[in-house]
Amino acid sequence: MAGSIQSVERAAAMLRLLAGGERRLGLTDIASALGLAKGTAHGILRTLQQEGFVEQDEVSGRYQLGAELLRLGNSYLDVHELRARALVWTDDLARASGEAVYLGVLHQQGVLIVHHVFRPDDSRQVLEVGAMQPLHSSALGKVLAAYDPVAHSEAVEAARERFTAHTVTGAADFEGVLDITRARGWAVDLEETWEGVASVAAPIHDRRRMPVGAVGITGAVERVCEGGEVRARLVAAVRDCARSVSRDLGGTRF
Amino acid sequence: MAGSIQSVERAAAMLRLLAGGERRLGLTDIASALGLAKGTAHGILRTLQQEGFVEQDEVSGRYQLGAELLRLGNSYLDVHELRARALVWTDDLARASGEAVYLGVLHQQGVLIVHHVFRPDDSRQVLEVGAMQPLHSSALGKVLAAYDPVAHSEAVEAARERFTAHTVTGAADFEGVLDITRARGWAVDLEETWEGVASVAAPIHDRRRMPVGAVGITGAVERVCEGGEVRARLVAAVRDCARSVSRDLGGTRF
Repeated sequence: MAGSIQSVERAAAMLRLLAGGERRLGLTDIASALGLAKGTAHGILRTLQQEGFVEQDEVSGRYQLGAELLRLGNSYLDVHELRARALVWTDDLARASGEAVYLGVLHQQGVLIVHHVFRPDDSRQVLEVGAMQPLHSSALGKVLAAYDPVAHSEAVEAARERFTAHTVTGAADFEGVLDITRARGWAVDLEETWEGVASVAAPIHDRRRMPVGAVGITGAVERVCEGGEVRARLVAAVRDCARSVSRDLGGTRF
Repeated sequence: MAGSIQSVERAAAMLRLLAGGERRLGLTDIASALGLAKGTAHGILRTLQQEGFVEQDEVSGRYQLGAELLRLGNSYLDVHELRARALVWTDDLARASGEAVYLGVLHQQGVLIVHHVFRPDDSRQVLEVGAMQPLHSSALGKVLAAYDPVAHSEAVEAARERFTAHTVTGAADFEGVLDITRARGWAVDLEETWEGVASVAAPIHDRRRMPVGAVGITGAVERVCEGGEVRARLVAAVRDCARSVSRDLGGTRF
């Protein structure tokens, strides 16, 4: 039917550019990064600015992302069925485990965090809804790569960056990790993404038995593990939560 | 220099449409709501879908907002100077007041919540970052309408909806509320937006003495008020927080 619209593609590319790296860029930087004439880039930027997707600093003249994106992102969450179904169960998981809980879905080449329950203590924590985690090293990412063929392709084709001495980067080793994940039904990240941090995650399936997301806990390796292994009661709590959400989504009873 | 780009404007209008009301719409609904031919609407929707701004339900074929908006909204927050400066002070305010804290900025015809600190107890609370509050009835909104001329115009020109029996909707009454707000340096919302809920807010100024946002607390009217008035210690705590953030932004010392 219709082809894709070049100016909309260019506008999206500008927003992606402003979301990474420098984050405050001048017209010349934006035009040259996207290979556009300055007049073309300015027309798109001006329109994005009118619509609230981009803001321009009055002093420096540089562009950055705009407030309308925050409002739309919040609206996206409002209709997120997986997130809505998971709210109560993830609260329970945080209480049962004493750790922070994350709910993630595949987005582009990584895991997008769509819900985050703080660790139930008085410590200062930063909300990570909207943040990304890597597919090849995080527990959420391994679950998605093990169960979702699209996530698997993304993880296999990507350059698997080494974040710590424990990150698995080799292709055969990574497939081995996914085999273990599928065999056990859950994934673990033992300081493979962040030094000192361990995670456990399990898959969520919908009524068509499709893997639609992953849920897990993340915490200090000293609390999450014992003798180099994840505490069994934490694995059980994570899997209970994943099963409950899957059941609420109409997935098979386990 | 350049004019605005029609297809980018149309794409933005589609995202706004999907963010309000029904939130899951078919191609025919979207095309007719925006007065576009179906082929034109489909080309833009397909491009938005490729870019992750829109998702299409496989079963119903209906469109809804996409995950990329959540990622970009999170990136917007990452470079938000006001929010970054306010993080520590708003945590302190939540602890000092025992109530939920909100930081808001003017966006379109309302207040966009850019930071929310939960009430420091064990109750279940829903994060409202990215949500909007009304300019004419919320404490944050009144502060912005009192101090920011653009917000004032928006609030005056808008149809001031009656949310409760206490909502001030008349033009002269509303200006009187703003006069009091400016005279005292803070605004109050006593069950004017939500039944049973009271809020107090104060303005934040930047280095150019411009009002750049508002910060306040929100809680049950039974806790926030005493004898029909907001407790003085809560007003003091809110104003302390607003002064501290303003000072960190380079605003005048008070």
